[in-house]
Amino acid sequence: MKPIVSIIMGSTSDWPVMEKTAVFLNEMQIPFEVNALSAHRTPEKVEVFARTAEERGIKVIIAAAGMAAHLPGVIAAMTALPVIGVPIKSSLEGMDAILAILQMPPGIPVATVALNGSLNAGILASQILAGSDAGIADKLKTYKENLKTKIVKANKDLAEYKFDYKTN
Amino acid sequence: MKPIVSIIMGSTSDWPVMEKTAVFLNEMQIPFEVNALSAHRTPEKVEVFARTAEERGIKVIIAAAGMAAHLPGVIAAMTALPVIGVPIKSSLEGMDAILAILQMPPGIPVATVALNGSLNAGILASQILAGSDAGIADKLKTYKENLKTKIVKANKDLAEYKFDYKTN
Amino acid sequence: MKPIVSIIMGSTSDWPVMEKTAVFLNEMQIPFEVNALSAHRTPEKVEVFARTAEERGIKVIIAAAGMAAHLPGVIAAMTALPVIGVPIKSSLEGMDAILAILQMPPGIPVATVALNGSLNAGILASQILAGSDAGIADKLKTYKENLKTKIVKANKDLAEYKFDYKTN
Amino acid sequence: MKPIVSIIMGSTSDWPVMEKTAVFLNEMQIPFEVNALSAHRTPEKVEVFARTAEERGIKVIIAAAGMAAHLPGVIAAMTALPVIGVPIKSSLEGMDAILAILQMPPGIPVATVALNGSLNAGILASQILAGSDAGIADKLKTYKENLKTKIVKANKDLAEYKFDYKTN
Amino acid sequence: MKPIVSIIMGSTSDWPVMEKTAVFLNEMQIPFEVNALSAHRTPEKVEVFARTAEERGIKVIIAAAGMAAHLPGVIAAMTALPVIGVPIKSSLEGMDAILAILQMPPGIPVATVALNGSLNAGILASQILAGSDAGIADKLKTYKENLKTKIVKANKDLAEYKFDYKTN
Amino acid sequence: MKPIVSIIMGSTSDWPVMEKTAVFLNEMQIPFEVNALSAHRTPEKVEVFARTAEERGIKVIIAAAGMAAHLPGVIAAMTALPVIGVPIKSSLEGMDAILAILQMPPGIPVATVALNGSLNAGILASQILAGSDAGIADKLKTYKENLKTKIVKANKDLAEYKFDYKTN
Amino acid sequence: MKPIVSIIMGSTSDWPVMEKTAVFLNEMQIPFEVNALSAHRTPEKVEVFARTAEERGIKVIIAAAGMAAHLPGVIAAMTALPVIGVPIKSSLEGMDAILAILQMPPGIPVATVALNGSLNAGILASQILAGSDAGIADKLKTYKENLKTKIVKANKDLAEYKFDYKTN
Amino acid sequence: MKPIVSIIMGSTSDWPVMEKTAVFLNEMQIPFEVNALSAHRTPEKVEVFARTAEERGIKVIIAAAGMAAHLPGVIAAMTALPVIGVPIKSSLEGMDAILAILQMPPGIPVATVALNGSLNAGILASQILAGSDAGIADKLKTYKENLKTKIVKANKDLAEYKFDYKTN
Repeated sequence: MKPIVSIIMGSTSDWPVMEKTAVFLNEMQIPFEVNALSAHRTPEKVEVFARTAEERGIKVIIAAAGMAAHLPGVIAAMTALPVIGVPIKSSLEGMDAILAILQMPPGIPVATVALNGSLNAGILASQILAGSDAGIADKLKTYKENLKTKIVKANKDLAEYKFDYKTN
Repeated sequence: MKPIVSIIMGSTSDWPVMEKTAVFLNEMQIPFEVNALSAHRTPEKVEVFARTAEERGIKVIIAAAGMAAHLPGVIAAMTALPVIGVPIKSSLEGMDAILAILQMPPGIPVATVALNGSLNAGILASQILAGSDAGIADKLKTYKENLKTKIVKANKDLAEYKFDYKTN
Repeated sequence: MKPIVSIIMGSTSDWPVMEKTAVFLNEMQIPFEVNALSAHRTPEKVEVFARTAEERGIKVIIAAAGMAAHLPGVIAAMTALPVIGVPIKSSLEGMDAILAILQMPPGIPVATVALNGSLNAGILASQILAGSDAGIADKLKTYKENLKTKIVKANKDLAEYKFDYKTN
Repeated sequence: MKPIVSIIMGSTSDWPVMEKTAVFLNEMQIPFEVNALSAHRTPEKVEVFARTAEERGIKVIIAAAGMAAHLPGVIAAMTALPVIGVPIKSSLEGMDAILAILQMPPGIPVATVALNGSLNAGILASQILAGSDAGIADKLKTYKENLKTKIVKANKDLAEYKFDYKTN
Repeated sequence: MKPIVSIIMGSTSDWPVMEKTAVFLNEMQIPFEVNALSAHRTPEKVEVFARTAEERGIKVIIAAAGMAAHLPGVIAAMTALPVIGVPIKSSLEGMDAILAILQMPPGIPVATVALNGSLNAGILASQILAGSDAGIADKLKTYKENLKTKIVKANKDLAEYKFDYKTN
Repeated sequence: MKPIVSIIMGSTSDWPVMEKTAVFLNEMQIPFEVNALSAHRTPEKVEVFARTAEERGIKVIIAAAGMAAHLPGVIAAMTALPVIGVPIKSSLEGMDAILAILQMPPGIPVATVALNGSLNAGILASQILAGSDAGIADKLKTYKENLKTKIVKANKDLAEYKFDYKTN
Repeated sequence: MKPIVSIIMGSTSDWPVMEKTAVFLNEMQIPFEVNALSAHRTPEKVEVFARTAEERGIKVIIAAAGMAAHLPGVIAAMTALPVIGVPIKSSLEGMDAILAILQMPPGIPVATVALNGSLNAGILASQILAGSDAGIADKLKTYKENLKTKIVKANKDLAEYKFDYKTN
Repeated sequence: MKPIVSIIMGSTSDWPVMEKTAVFLNEMQIPFEVNALSAHRTPEKVEVFARTAEERGIKVIIAAAGMAAHLPGVIAAMTALPVIGVPIKSSLEGMDAILAILQMPPGIPVATVALNGSLNAGILASQILAGSDAGIADKLKTYKENLKTKIVKANKDLAEYKFDYKTN
């Protein structure tokens, strides 16, 4: 199957964070591709990547980068596809990456998620795709139900574990 | 025509910022609705709003709020639709609104745009819709072309205006 | 005995911090309950929790959360009880949690304590309850006296340990 | 009637912000007193104020200050009453006042509200008092209902005002 | 004369700040060109600009931008010329522009100057050029001498204006 | 009388802030001198100033600067006299000046006061001088008494002005 | 010998940082005392400490505290002696302690040194005392000379260690 | 060969960061010297260093410092050579060093690179030298090509490593 989501990161060192995006898309059975290309070190490749994404069948791009994180914005400037930006923490508590991705000027949005928010990037991509794909929409709903089941179970465990405080 | 984008803001005082979203969607001929509902002052109405959005035909929600801006996240928790968050500056240079919208925990993303980034919220919503609507996709491309024309013209004016410096 | 304080946290991972609240309330012999419910993953359960708290006999709610910490504010929006918010540090040095809890808009206050300030949340709850419960008021005074005794003793130890510097 | 809430501020220049607390308490018919005393310039008076508050019949103290805002914490150190802290913005966007009030060490909490959050301080004081005063509890509920009515009305006005966008 | 310094800014609205660079270069009699091109709205033009700068005879590029200021870094990625970055204040006190320009990843430096530091950008460009142009080196030294004369004179004026304080 | 306090500022534009230091020292009848010298634009003059201060009879130096405020630290490096640093707000809410003055490395302290804290710089200088000058010590005490009288009076005025709230 | 410098800290846990102050004063042969007293937990003892310091022969107070660090300011409010404040890092990268000590309102200065700047606090105290004690002045000068000797030696070592780079 | 780049750092403890500058310059075969001199502890040596740099044949100075990092600015004030500043992280996440180096006042620029950006400092120095040295220009181009080769290879490895996700 041809990928419809493209994960791109500024450095292969971002992969331990971004692997969660891949795992989630896999779970949703959404075909995706993975690339590591730097806006600064390989600008021509980034340009080819961005300009051909739509015709290659990509529907959503997820771009992750740290420091002066230009990758998501640079890609957004060269495609009409929605671009999700994931700030990666590597210095200054990640504030540099957050602001360099989030604060895009009028005209070129990047849909920014939380610092190191790779799982949420995958979910957001799925939500965007679900608008025109009922199968993904269904899988997302199942996923959300499971999330709730887990936290409700955790709450029960906690309540039991705590019981001795209350009776004292 | 039934609205497919829903603009919601935490307070009517956010309207001067959010009007740009409305103007843009109008220009794109995307039908939309506008609401002012507070996550804190009218939580039941926000819940009804969020839970019925999908069945009312809404495809994308744009939620704006300031300070401890919970509105986008609270709505995202109650719908499977993509939610775009617009941090509104009202105190602490807007950093409170940015962090309260952006830093969503794993499981519930909000697609955050820049501080007071109301135009970009409209563009991002259009990009999401363009995935399954070729008409919107075309209008977006035209819009982007016009943006370029404007800035190229501005550059020319600037170059001319500056000429006397260079010859001295 | 029925609980009169309710400790709620956004995730069971907050428990190592919030255990100090439980230990303190236990020491004050104030009956309490503990829940882990997420404003974003289990919004319906949070709503039931908040709307029934008063009728279940709860007098004060202590709500802890990290990142875009909406839980305290969301609960405060659905109850007239005083809500104490505890920002939990998990990213950005905890500044996201502080601002997302503290900066509530006019109309819905959250009584915010320091980052990871779980002990102070317990003391503040006790101070609020002490207004109509002389027994708690007495225990609080004893607790404060003990605090002083400890620090006075620590100071003495320090003065002795330092003695050799002064004589040189 | 003897005051049961005490509003204290570090400087008379804080009054334009704190007047909202007074107006709200008045509306709730809660008797209160107002003082301007500086933790740094009149420490003895602050001490007398704090040590006698309880015996004078005060149930809740609301303390406002700017810059290195020590007043709320200093008072909290000298009384067992709950102390609500209001950070006043005067420099550094108010971040100095927020941190100097919020970040109290273990043992001495201050219930901090938002920057310049004088209305919320009044509401929080009322919520604390409502625990043992049904009259205040009733008035608070009426107040909250009115808040909703206002924002629902504002939303209607907005929807109408926007109508022309949607039909275009 | 052919320009050897190129001033480029992300938006014509940056011109009131960047005019100081132009005035300074003019004073140094260094030929320069001025462009307004956005990394996000006109990426192709920026690329042509950057890739041809060296062959057009440019020796130093001065790039100014605000918000998520990618322009200096994007240009630095596509040329071997030294690039001076000027963060322009437009939101968040300019911290977004500072971090988005300064925090470049290893491999692609941008020589960043202070927020709105347009004069210093001109001086830095001159210092770089002075390394291989004795005429510029001489003019720079004269400029620095004049700076000192001005401040020494200001100091004298101040000392006299203050005199009455000292004699009282 | 020969000056014993030296006020130095990085730019004559700091004078409107620093005038309060001068007014205070005048009120204390402490002879002082005023200079505007830049650590960056007139480093030789700053060095002569710092190296000769002690022999000219100066006992305390008060140095004010904004932005990357090196003046206080540079002077402290070249004299054994106590140096008081006053951060002047001119950009980034003054945080640059605060950190550039406060965060001196081990070995060379600068006694830093609040942002634009020119009055406190004067008081601190007086406190340092009071250690060996009983006349200054007495004047300081009188000054502090007057401060209290003023705020006590302000509090009375406030209490009266507020009276109508309490009786309603 | 009676102490003339008083080191006070908010908690005995500050001692590992503040020990450097003690070691330095010892080296300068300046007699000192050490106390751990909390502005919040033992306010009466802090008051007695501050009000009696001058008559006990203390000339300079060095006060260290973390978080909402009120101790230096509270002491400064109750004595005419110069008070040196040392912000201790324990949360929020120490920014809370810095602002809570530095940003004192007009009238009550605290001479603030760098985060965890315990050595500089000792040096600053010595500089203040040196104004009226030639013996301390001499020892300070010797200390500064030694500092230089050390760093000059370090530089030589570095230059040699690096030699192989230059010859390659 | 005589050095043409001078690396100077405020403390030998900065060497582990700055070694990357040395390694890079070595790779470029650019002769350099290394010094550790403190703006605060050895100001006279810094002055001699700065004032003689040009006549010793130095073309670019790279100055690194942490905390209230005055070294780059102090040197820039005493030479007409271009000065590259490297902020070293040692406290406050390095924000103090960034602002103390970057925010130079008009007249004296420092070409600031990222926090701990020692490699970029070396590259920037090379770019400046390349303007008048074709050999360095060639080596820089080779270096940049190698950078690309490395990241393109890393991307390939990543794509292969990821393959199993896509096929599932």
